[in-house]
Amino acid sequence: MKFVVIGGDAAGMSAASRARRLYPDLEITVLEQGFDVSYSACSMPYNIADPDTPMDDLVVRTAQEFIDKHHIDLRTGHRATAIDPSTKQVTARTLHGESVVFAYDKLLIATGAVPTLPDLPGKDRLMPLKQLEHGRRIKEMIQKHPVKKAVILGMGYIALEMCEALAGLGIQVTMVKPGPRLLPWLPEKLAQIVQEELIRKHVMLHMGTDILRIESRGPGSTIICDGLALDADLVIGATGVAPCSDLAKDAGLDLGVSDAIRVDPYLRSSNPDIFAAGDCGDAIHVVTGKPVWIPLALRANRAGWAVADNLFADSNALQGVAGTAVFKVFDLTVVRSGLTLSEAKKAGFDPVENQITSLSRARWQPGAAKIHINMVGDRQSGRLLGAQATGTDGVAHRINAVAVALHANMSVADFIQTDLAYAPPFSPTWDPMLTAAIQLQKKL
Amino acid sequence: MKFVVIGGDAAGMSAASRARRLYPDLEITVLEQGFDVSYSACSMPYNIADPDTPMDDLVVRTAQEFIDKHHIDLRTGHRATAIDPSTKQVTARTLHGESVVFAYDKLLIATGAVPTLPDLPGKDRLMPLKQLEHGRRIKEMIQKHPVKKAVILGMGYIALEMCEALAGLGIQVTMVKPGPRLLPWLPEKLAQIVQEELIRKHVMLHMGTDILRIESRGPGSTIICDGLALDADLVIGATGVAPCSDLAKDAGLDLGVSDAIRVDPYLRSSNPDIFAAGDCGDAIHVVTGKPVWIPLALRANRAGWAVADNLFADSNALQGVAGTAVFKVFDLTVVRSGLTLSEAKKAGFDPVENQITSLSRARWQPGAAKIHINMVGDRQSGRLLGAQATGTDGVAHRINAVAVALHANMSVADFIQTDLAYAPPFSPTWDPMLTAAIQLQKKL
Repeated sequence: MKFVVIGGDAAGMSAASRARRLYPDLEITVLEQGFDVSYSACSMPYNIADPDTPMDDLVVRTAQEFIDKHHIDLRTGHRATAIDPSTKQVTARTLHGESVVFAYDKLLIATGAVPTLPDLPGKDRLMPLKQLEHGRRIKEMIQKHPVKKAVILGMGYIALEMCEALAGLGIQVTMVKPGPRLLPWLPEKLAQIVQEELIRKHVMLHMGTDILRIESRGPGSTIICDGLALDADLVIGATGVAPCSDLAKDAGLDLGVSDAIRVDPYLRSSNPDIFAAGDCGDAIHVVTGKPVWIPLALRANRAGWAVADNLFADSNALQGVAGTAVFKVFDLTVVRSGLTLSEAKKAGFDPVENQITSLSRARWQPGAAKIHINMVGDRQSGRLLGAQATGTDGVAHRINAVAVALHANMSVADFIQTDLAYAPPFSPTWDPMLTAAIQLQKKL
Repeated sequence: MKFVVIGGDAAGMSAASRARRLYPDLEITVLEQGFDVSYSACSMPYNIADPDTPMDDLVVRTAQEFIDKHHIDLRTGHRATAIDPSTKQVTARTLHGESVVFAYDKLLIATGAVPTLPDLPGKDRLMPLKQLEHGRRIKEMIQKHPVKKAVILGMGYIALEMCEALAGLGIQVTMVKPGPRLLPWLPEKLAQIVQEELIRKHVMLHMGTDILRIESRGPGSTIICDGLALDADLVIGATGVAPCSDLAKDAGLDLGVSDAIRVDPYLRSSNPDIFAAGDCGDAIHVVTGKPVWIPLALRANRAGWAVADNLFADSNALQGVAGTAVFKVFDLTVVRSGLTLSEAKKAGFDPVENQITSLSRARWQPGAAKIHINMVGDRQSGRLLGAQATGTDGVAHRINAVAVALHANMSVADFIQTDLAYAPPFSPTWDPMLTAAIQLQKKL
């Protein structure tokens, strides 16, 4: 039996490794267009911030290790170009231009997502950050050239993490986006807190600013915007990602929301012998029960594992995602899980939101700081739908209590009853998430 | 209508305050034997550690504020001595020895718990830490006398918090207990980690050591143990607490586990006009479904509120406790929620436990530290039963995910599926609690 995996990132390598453990005799081939597999992509901004640690330290396992220790036929420099479900074959092109055909019994598409860079004149000067090779290029750029000014297009998670990394290196960072608001999914008051933190750290923000073109200026660039010309030694493109689903589409597989590959709970695409996992595939949202495309690392790992479990029998049905996320912006932590008010409206709920500010620890404790929480519930059912929060202390793991409650379809009233940990160095008697729920319940 | 509350601590004052908000015309009387109401008892060790902050800063509201602003007839220095359910009267004795009788329509017993000090010769030299007055006495003792050596009898939460507080003041701390193990409810390997932390901080531990008597030695004491004589300028008694349920018992109310007052989900005792809340009453454990006595602050506050809600109609049924707790021992945090293996066995489950060690953050992150987790599940049902953990980073709020899962009766398999927050500064891709669940599931 032959198991072919397209894409050697988190989902692909998780699936291949676990398949090897489960099925010692399975022939496993992984086709990876680049040369890096199994590395911590999410750690790249932090590595860029640290000149003393090589980017290659983020590699968890090298391609050679998978070949030697796991007996996986891992082909780097092989870009899959076509899938033929009728003959169960994948065609790949090597860097030398050769075409190689691989027969499969079971196929996994784990092609991930690609940065969606704006189609501007001069866009070749934009440096994205998605693959390890991107990270290496940015780091090398900073180390080999005197980078004093950077412009980041976009203001999402990765843009903000890169902003912190570059600012920490003494680089003046300017961020630009056409949309009118920072983190539009965050309630305005919370987004305002993030914005103030960025400004306090001397980051220049230009929202509502159309980007027209990028011109070269000596070794650097000038980003010409509507009413602005920004000089930069480095231009980061972090304007979002899209699922790599063209191969799947060409093979006749169903795509769904955001053009991600539609999968069932067993990670099977519309063709029963073809699985999809990771950032190229969709998932069921545990709150709405509907497909959603939220490319996050935990899901990619989990889905990769599940594909191996489900290769020959339906044994691991994934329940879905709550869209739980956390990121750091200088001293602030921002978290979310579940739906925002507007997402909840779109999903057909009758949502209500409420914002509170609480302390992260008992008020007498050193380190106690404000946590700002927005919680969303459904007026009709009383159900907890989601929460977003920000603060400088004790924010990150608090969202996990909400995430578990969302998986359990808890009502706000039931969440209020949960017995959360209290001791003065860690929390007020009522955890801020409980206080948020109590205040929200009054509006339901 | 007359609402009488016996005891002006967390549960009593929560009930009185909320009853005032709900029923502006209700006559509310609170009988408090001491003079302090509404203060953060749990913060006392941290206040003792801080010479610059007066103990009275922990007072949230003074008795006079309750009287003036909330129009509560708060009688400090009134110790309730008898309840007569047939005539619906409470008798109290003032500090001057007068007896005063209070008629009630609804009564709340919120008498809390008392330290259970060992009955030793010289036990009057033991200083407990339960009420604010105890805190004041210990702090005054340290500030007015040269306290160089302290002995703490007991090694539970409060003993360990006091140990850290005193050691921080440069006092050499010795801890003694007759039982053979530190934190016997923690799996041995985890307890060992706590023990090593204490030893690293130069705390002297004598476990399995019977305490025979306490002798005076000038202004200090000598604690005579079986095979040891320990000199001390200060002797803290932190050997546990017991519910104050004598009044309730004498009034014919049903007591249950640990002699706590048995209450229903509406906090009613066996007499429908008498409620009990706080550390004197029991609760239903959400995992076992059976009564349990776990005196913790959040439950006391929650139960106090619920009593006010339920005074005249059953409107707020409490679902129970998971026994979630967190405490700090120097650089370590220790948490638990739900059942330990032995508690699960006693409750009739077929439990399995598994221990893992994971990192608190992505391995490349500064500050990443080991988290040691023991997770318990039921072989028969697959249900998650509890977890205990310790570590120096990112431990406290992680237990809340487990607590919520226990409230939702989640299986270990379902908990594995939860979408917990990941970003390198805060967590590995798989949150340590997920890793613990995955490894436990293999044993189920």
